[in-house]
Amino acid sequence: MSISRRKFIASTAMVGLGMNTVSAATPAKTPLIHHVFFWLKNPNSKEDLQKLIDGLRTLAKIETVKQLHIGVPAETEKRDVIDNSYSVSELMFFDDLAGQKIYQDHPIHKKFIESCSSLWSKVQVYDSMDLN
Amino acid sequence: MSISRRKFIASTAMVGLGMNTVSAATPAKTPLIHHVFFWLKNPNSKEDLQKLIDGLRTLAKIETVKQLHIGVPAETEKRDVIDNSYSVSELMFFDDLAGQKIYQDHPIHKKFIESCSSLWSKVQVYDSMDLN
Repeated sequence: MSISRRKFIASTAMVGLGMNTVSAATPAKTPLIHHVFFWLKNPNSKEDLQKLIDGLRTLAKIETVKQLHIGVPAETEKRDVIDNSYSVSELMFFDDLAGQKIYQDHPIHKKFIESCSSLWSKVQVYDSMDLN
Repeated sequence: MSISRRKFIASTAMVGLGMNTVSAATPAKTPLIHHVFFWLKNPNSKEDLQKLIDGLRTLAKIETVKQLHIGVPAETEKRDVIDNSYSVSELMFFDDLAGQKIYQDHPIHKKFIESCSSLWSKVQVYDSMDLN
């Protein structure tokens, strides 16, 4: 799909969501933050960890992914409120809901799920709209 | 505390963590991503939501906080893996573990907890080290 075609679809989707009815002072696009945590079936397998990280890196090629941060649990202080049991963190920024939808349906994303979903036992997703 | 004093403490802490023993090709600082989700005691109270958001905004003044994104659940597709039950998301970037520790102990952070902790019933934290 060409960039212009993709942009057309994105803007059409935003009209459908009523996101064009904002005041002049409000940006038309509200950044969407998509954070996914993966728990590996074999959390001690360095090979599986690397496969998952390599798979996640391919997602950066999707044009609507504005930032991609791949991480592992940090060695911060131990507190009950901190969940450090996951294996890999994937943090993405999108310009808008439409960009996230294009990502979800993108062949590269589908290929990633096909290649890597056997590696994980659990996925936890948080999507938020940035108020800044 | 002055900036130079703070920087001195940060670099001293990094030496303590052995983070200066990296190769020339590796950046000495690995960005730390700190993501906190808050569940309000009164999830339908717009006043409590605003109080929490206003409190979170004060945290941007802490020098080691490199990026602060305050968000609310996005209207993405409904899927079992997506948790959209939280009230507010706070996403922060730090240069390193030491920067996060300075933030945790900072008077502005302590004042935020004192002023706002009565508003929430649950907090969930994920800290990750960015591999990019």
